[in-house]
Amino acid sequence: MSVNGVNYLAGIRVLDFTQFEAGPACTEALAWLGAEVVKVENPNLGDPGRKSFRGAPGQDSWYFLLFNANKKSVTANLKSERGLALVKDLLRQADVCVENFAPGAIERLGLSYEEVKKLNPGIIYAQVKGFGTGSPHEKHLAFDMIAQATGGVMSITGERDGPPAKPGTTLGDTGTGMLLAVSILGALYRRKSTGQGERIEIAMQDAMLQYIRVALAAQATTGAPAQRNGAKILSGVNVPSGIYPCQPGGPNDYCYVYTSRANPAHWHSLLKTIGRADLIGDPNFESIEARAEREPEVDAMIAAWTSQRDKREAMRILGAAGVPAGAVFDTMELQHEKSFEDRRIMQVMEHPACGPFKMPTWPVRFGGSTVSVAPAPLLGEHTEEVLEKWLGMSTDQICDLRKCGAL
Amino acid sequence: MSVNGVNYLAGIRVLDFTQFEAGPACTEALAWLGAEVVKVENPNLGDPGRKSFRGAPGQDSWYFLLFNANKKSVTANLKSERGLALVKDLLRQADVCVENFAPGAIERLGLSYEEVKKLNPGIIYAQVKGFGTGSPHEKHLAFDMIAQATGGVMSITGERDGPPAKPGTTLGDTGTGMLLAVSILGALYRRKSTGQGERIEIAMQDAMLQYIRVALAAQATTGAPAQRNGAKILSGVNVPSGIYPCQPGGPNDYCYVYTSRANPAHWHSLLKTIGRADLIGDPNFESIEARAEREPEVDAMIAAWTSQRDKREAMRILGAAGVPAGAVFDTMELQHEKSFEDRRIMQVMEHPACGPFKMPTWPVRFGGSTVSVAPAPLLGEHTEEVLEKWLGMSTDQICDLRKCGAL
Repeated sequence: MSVNGVNYLAGIRVLDFTQFEAGPACTEALAWLGAEVVKVENPNLGDPGRKSFRGAPGQDSWYFLLFNANKKSVTANLKSERGLALVKDLLRQADVCVENFAPGAIERLGLSYEEVKKLNPGIIYAQVKGFGTGSPHEKHLAFDMIAQATGGVMSITGERDGPPAKPGTTLGDTGTGMLLAVSILGALYRRKSTGQGERIEIAMQDAMLQYIRVALAAQATTGAPAQRNGAKILSGVNVPSGIYPCQPGGPNDYCYVYTSRANPAHWHSLLKTIGRADLIGDPNFESIEARAEREPEVDAMIAAWTSQRDKREAMRILGAAGVPAGAVFDTMELQHEKSFEDRRIMQVMEHPACGPFKMPTWPVRFGGSTVSVAPAPLLGEHTEEVLEKWLGMSTDQICDLRKCGAL
Repeated sequence: MSVNGVNYLAGIRVLDFTQFEAGPACTEALAWLGAEVVKVENPNLGDPGRKSFRGAPGQDSWYFLLFNANKKSVTANLKSERGLALVKDLLRQADVCVENFAPGAIERLGLSYEEVKKLNPGIIYAQVKGFGTGSPHEKHLAFDMIAQATGGVMSITGERDGPPAKPGTTLGDTGTGMLLAVSILGALYRRKSTGQGERIEIAMQDAMLQYIRVALAAQATTGAPAQRNGAKILSGVNVPSGIYPCQPGGPNDYCYVYTSRANPAHWHSLLKTIGRADLIGDPNFESIEARAEREPEVDAMIAAWTSQRDKREAMRILGAAGVPAGAVFDTMELQHEKSFEDRRIMQVMEHPACGPFKMPTWPVRFGGSTVSVAPAPLLGEHTEEVLEKWLGMSTDQICDLRKCGAL
């Protein structure tokens, strides 16, 4: 029943109560791996991610398309008796359900884990919270940026002497969703032999710790909180590491240059490439410690070379010489990067209402192949299909539910 | 055989050729879910992550401990004939193998997928690359920061008018490792019914696209590359969103305050909390669009309130009022946050050589429980155990291998 080329999770039914990003990113990953993911949405507006952001005029937002590819959509009014009964019937047929409502909301609907496991003891019931059960902030709302603030991410991002910055990446949401996907898949693996269900809970603040561990290692070394350090690595003891200006000097015209402590050859290759082979073996620069004492000098000699080239050329030459180097690409450059399309890391979603939309898909190759993107669903697009298939309902029964406002 | 309380992957054998972070973060997640993860390390120094960073004097680095909990270690000299033969025997017994050497290295060792699948057709063979097969940069080295530069992350991080910044999070490494873990688990699920092996490849640059999708949505809306925006959200159209200064004015004494477009009640609750209920319903501030026109005024009225409090108090009061709010916590504050220890999101690793080390574990609760941390292995700590168990070797045979330099 997979809607794409990868069918690892063929036959798995996911009932998806998620909204915005943390939950949807998780269930989209499951859909890309071949699960049948059915969004349950309120008949009025659906997932608020559909309309809270901008898209083609009058249509679902680009944001919604990005996080809901390859899913199906069913409408159900959870506040009507028959709508709720219908969802309970669907839960009886599901292998997994996932939700990321505000704290306490799913329980108020009568769909707590305790209730749902009575309907389906083998279900894997997964929840995203902002703050974990037992945390002093347990009842507080959280969004991506709140997780990034309270989970340490912002304190280690930004210029050394400037205020904390929020990474443009939505780690609080998607970063949490990925850890939840790993956890659900682990539980599914056991369930396949034992039939055992499970309740899984992840909190966005807690999830951030997974991504700041290098800062925690730095802190263990110095005994002080890890500091932000602009484009350089946190500890600041690895020289060179940072961005160097390139032609023509636009806001992202930089090339990152790094030399690993673990491989002294990087430094020698760098010197040869930038025309400073005379410094190979010079004790003033040979060790990372020596270079750390002369960081401004090191940075100036690299910048003298990069600033005569554009970032792609700098990256190509340094990379070919075995020096870890990377141009700072902006989102538009990535959008138009031919290699992503050739390799199907980006694909065009042919959406019936929004038109073609080129977007990244699951960035993994399986036996040399990739997943295939299918459109994000229109609100309620698959109500009939799913009620017929999962519950064996007739057209008349579905019409009746529709008339009474349950769908 | 699980070494902790979560046994979803009990019986799964992972042969782990990974080093540094991207690969180790992936295999550590599998270990936390109950797989038996055996690192294969060179007898000389082992995973370079052991000694390239700092730790207790003369011991493995804190970095190594963080990314290698709950694993085992076997030494094998892959450049000796008998060492390589031994590893091939281990590969015959493995369900999964993972590697993240430099491009081409595993193939030069004679352990390409083509070779390994001859030994074990059902194996799941997973590789981390810097740049994908077919990319123009395919043969270039990459480290975390190179992925963050070339994958768009840096272009959207930093102050609006400043240079690109590198988030303190190591998304290029751990962010990639998490997507690989999802992919391996998907393949394991299918394999459980079909016995089918698979080759899985992820590139760090490609993986970054998974985390910058909100920036791609913003770009689809404006037609221009997404811009960095300090602590505020990228699009800049949501007011308020940002950090506000708190007492006593240290580098991380800020509280994030946000009001969602999808819920106008947040703004009203915020106004009441900061003593400006007089502005409820005022058309100059009622909509997000109106507030966007008066952003400095909005920011000033929130800062007037936050700057009289410390960040914890500001967060507590705003959170209790239903306003999304979060203190910017630094890494030391998180290290000492009692709730993390109480909830076992952080646990103490009792390491035989490095002593006790408090660190974050897999931040997920399964049926209310968490995984239990076990020490990262000493180099070769489990050579005898694993050769006996996986290969049925005798003490004499192992001694012999050791004498000839294979271990």
